[in-house]
Amino acid sequence: MPKVSESHRAGRRRQILDAARTVFARHGYEGATVARLEEQVGLSRGAIFNYFPSKRAIFYALAQEDLERALRLLLDRDFGAVLRMMNAESPEWLAVYLEFMRMLRTDPGLRAEWSNRSPELIGELAEHLGRQQQRGELRSDVSVEAIGTFLGLVADGAAVHISAGYPIDVESVVRLVGSAIERPRARPAPPSPPRPPRS
Amino acid sequence: MPKVSESHRAGRRRQILDAARTVFARHGYEGATVARLEEQVGLSRGAIFNYFPSKRAIFYALAQEDLERALRLLLDRDFGAVLRMMNAESPEWLAVYLEFMRMLRTDPGLRAEWSNRSPELIGELAEHLGRQQQRGELRSDVSVEAIGTFLGLVADGAAVHISAGYPIDVESVVRLVGSAIERPRARPAPPSPPRPPRS
Repeated sequence: MPKVSESHRAGRRRQILDAARTVFARHGYEGATVARLEEQVGLSRGAIFNYFPSKRAIFYALAQEDLERALRLLLDRDFGAVLRMMNAESPEWLAVYLEFMRMLRTDPGLRAEWSNRSPELIGELAEHLGRQQQRGELRSDVSVEAIGTFLGLVADGAAVHISAGYPIDVESVVRLVGSAIERPRARPAPPSPPRPPRS
Repeated sequence: MPKVSESHRAGRRRQILDAARTVFARHGYEGATVARLEEQVGLSRGAIFNYFPSKRAIFYALAQEDLERALRLLLDRDFGAVLRMMNAESPEWLAVYLEFMRMLRTDPGLRAEWSNRSPELIGELAEHLGRQQQRGELRSDVSVEAIGTFLGLVADGAAVHISAGYPIDVESVVRLVGSAIERPRARPAPPSPPRPPRS
């Protein structure tokens, strides 16, 4: 197959994903009918389903792209960058991502697929966190897995807040999450506040 | 009005809320039709709407009850008790609670009402956290409001995980959240781990 066809395919795939994200964000998963996808993508259903076997597969690919973007940011930058990216994300799309999470419970096929998602990146994150533990940057009395799950928990909570129309105060959350997962420093704690308790 | 009527009204209200919670959990907000509510409650729509002005008002009352139960647990016990309560909650209902959160963004009336929710309990929590700061139990370099928001963020993330069919490892989360919000203790940090970094 000639090279141009490969890049043509990648471009088409991108076109479908971008348009589908808009449709899902606007109408939710159920409301994203094939007719609406066709109209927004500008391709027939035959052409679309030549790239993805089903609407669910498009949805899955978008959720996986988001996850990988977040993991990449966490690896290359930090958790604050992930939260800032989420604050800038469309609340409608975050609502659709949350819809996807809910589908995991009731769709065993989707759940099985999701449990094998992005193994390279997830492995890379586990190694990254493990090295941070070894260097004494992260606490080591809690497993790498528990730290990763906790970061996911906070990010999913942020998705709920942002999709409800309440942006995240990134600085406060980063500070609190830092204290949660970093190794305590050897400096003495600051003195107790001098004021008597309010009664 | 005689006393018996008051307690009768309270019982009816309870009956409606319990049955409605089942219907919302089973069918979602949109799918919870008045016919389904009538059937599950065992009362006519006339009787139901004698207690609540609308389906939305029933939904709001349920979300508020959940919030108040969580705040009460946080005040009387601790954050772990809140997470354990959520683990025991029906994943379907948590999904409906998340649907409620999403409605806040697009329904200005609901949002305005929610921003004035349970003022006594929320005031009580702010005072409780303030006293913990004064006693040096909670960190005081972050506002009481930021701590409260953070606990809400973690709880909402827990709702996402549980409604997706992944229960929370309460012990790990409580440990991490504790380090996030507690005042650092004056003890020196443990020594760095002796093993060389994996390469």
